[in-house]
Amino acid sequence: MIPHPYLLYLGDSTDELSVKTCRGVAVWRPELCVGEFRGPRCTVTLGLPHLDFAEAVERGARTLILGIANAGGVMAPQAVEDVLAALKAGLNVASGLHDRLFGHSEIKAAAEALGLELFDVREPPPHLPIGNGRRRSGRRLLTVGTDCSVGKMYTTLALERELKARGVAAEFRATGQTGIFIAGSGIPIDAVVADFISGAAEILSPERSDDGWDLVEGQGSLFHPSFAGVSLGLLHGSQPDALILCHESGRPHMRGLPGRPLPDLKTCLLANLEAAKLTSPDVLAVGVALNTSHLGPEEAHRACREAEDLLGLPCQDPIATGVDRIADRLLACFETSAAA
Amino acid sequence: MIPHPYLLYLGDSTDELSVKTCRGVAVWRPELCVGEFRGPRCTVTLGLPHLDFAEAVERGARTLILGIANAGGVMAPQAVEDVLAALKAGLNVASGLHDRLFGHSEIKAAAEALGLELFDVREPPPHLPIGNGRRRSGRRLLTVGTDCSVGKMYTTLALERELKARGVAAEFRATGQTGIFIAGSGIPIDAVVADFISGAAEILSPERSDDGWDLVEGQGSLFHPSFAGVSLGLLHGSQPDALILCHESGRPHMRGLPGRPLPDLKTCLLANLEAAKLTSPDVLAVGVALNTSHLGPEEAHRACREAEDLLGLPCQDPIATGVDRIADRLLACFETSAAA
Repeated sequence: MIPHPYLLYLGDSTDELSVKTCRGVAVWRPELCVGEFRGPRCTVTLGLPHLDFAEAVERGARTLILGIANAGGVMAPQAVEDVLAALKAGLNVASGLHDRLFGHSEIKAAAEALGLELFDVREPPPHLPIGNGRRRSGRRLLTVGTDCSVGKMYTTLALERELKARGVAAEFRATGQTGIFIAGSGIPIDAVVADFISGAAEILSPERSDDGWDLVEGQGSLFHPSFAGVSLGLLHGSQPDALILCHESGRPHMRGLPGRPLPDLKTCLLANLEAAKLTSPDVLAVGVALNTSHLGPEEAHRACREAEDLLGLPCQDPIATGVDRIADRLLACFETSAAA
Repeated sequence: MIPHPYLLYLGDSTDELSVKTCRGVAVWRPELCVGEFRGPRCTVTLGLPHLDFAEAVERGARTLILGIANAGGVMAPQAVEDVLAALKAGLNVASGLHDRLFGHSEIKAAAEALGLELFDVREPPPHLPIGNGRRRSGRRLLTVGTDCSVGKMYTTLALERELKARGVAAEFRATGQTGIFIAGSGIPIDAVVADFISGAAEILSPERSDDGWDLVEGQGSLFHPSFAGVSLGLLHGSQPDALILCHESGRPHMRGLPGRPLPDLKTCLLANLEAAKLTSPDVLAVGVALNTSHLGPEEAHRACREAEDLLGLPCQDPIATGVDRIADRLLACFETSAAA
């Protein structure tokens, strides 16, 4: 677990996209964030208090979160200096960059000397097991998608919030860097060696004996030719009792692949259910999450209605309307099956 | 490319299973093997001349092949000594062990000092691309399976031999350690980071402009819950025009997973065809390769007939009867489609 509260590092970022990860943490875990650290040329803000490292420590911060993206994923010299200063001020450091903290000998040495921890959240844990596909106890839900970046993490977190508000035990299980900062732990599933994808998913959502839910953040898409292997291993290893299908309305082509159309919702959902049955024979779909941010309100409403009619499942835009009806369906399905 | 001819290292092996990789090389590339190196306690043989390192070099050997398996995949102290002696005698060294040659500083230093090469064939190449799924020229065939270890490599190599005997250009593309020694190059697909599985498969079988075939060695199975992600990424990246389904008759359960039955042939083939269509819309199945080594001759004949009737495809045991009828079907299908 990454110790919290956090100070979010924005460095000298000048565009929204490059601070996407920090923003995800601020949006979903405001209670964990004491402030943001901005360099002199920084032009973006998360609306949190602007703090230097000493001030952040005074307010209780325990870890600096490098949730930024930059050209080539390499740490700029200024970022290295800032990390060293943060360590000296007494902060642990967690990074989502490709360029590992542990790859910088001066950072590693400083952390060791000061007794502080470094977290490279793109680095999978060592000694992952091979998946075994054996049925395990507990209830698990996985978000799957027509494409990458259609709102799987957002949907999973919205459902966690909704279930918790109803007093249902539910834990978000993170599979990507932003999710890992939000959850404080997780496994970057796309960075795992291919042989261990499903094994990693199995230990990410281990057996549980209460009636609560493990809500697993999906990755990629069975229909994305770059990443479908990751999606399938995650699907098998997660052994989901329930799926939510995520989609962005009006997306013109598969992410990064101009000219390649998205699968239709029904084909995509059926393929995921069929593949999931290998390790979870009774898997059910419980809803559709539609990202309608590029549509007007009427179009958005119509898109949700069409998906509902097509699939016979509640369909909501988690950002615009929340996921209450999807949660209703989830709980109804699994009350019924428990009583049956 | 691993320089040949080879000297095959058996060390102090005392069982057949542990020299399986060396045997694969001796069976499929006898013309590349000048001999075998046996330690004093070795009780197995490949039937090749027994040579020490100096003798092997005299006979033209350029690389020592560590194609052995041992407890934990770690190199025994004797094996390290032998590798150093082989280098001193002038041999390059290629290893299929988990324990990397490059992880032993004395081996690395000796190779550098002597100007010789080390090959860790379980180590994927650096800087693999993300798959893009774009249609590329050339003809490709992939072997897929109901399970792991059902004869996919053997079938692929048998087809390469058959096609070459008919004057058809055909190259075996290796995805596992034994295959890589046999081909002299390849990518250990299950050792690749998850995000790059299909990208690795794309560069393994790049576009080609002649009428020849890239014959890609399959791995795992879409129905093996431990490895299906690898199989799917390989299927998408290989972009196969043709599939051969491989199966071992009478296998009681999925490899390593007692109690988990194998999929039936039809379900397995249809799932592979359906998934393959994402990157190769016109993919065809051209045959079934049945490993009938656990059946009597009459049973084997019946099993092949049943598979033929079920799937409408030629079915052969590559070991017992070769793959001539499967090659006939392959060539007929693609003559026809070229003429159409």
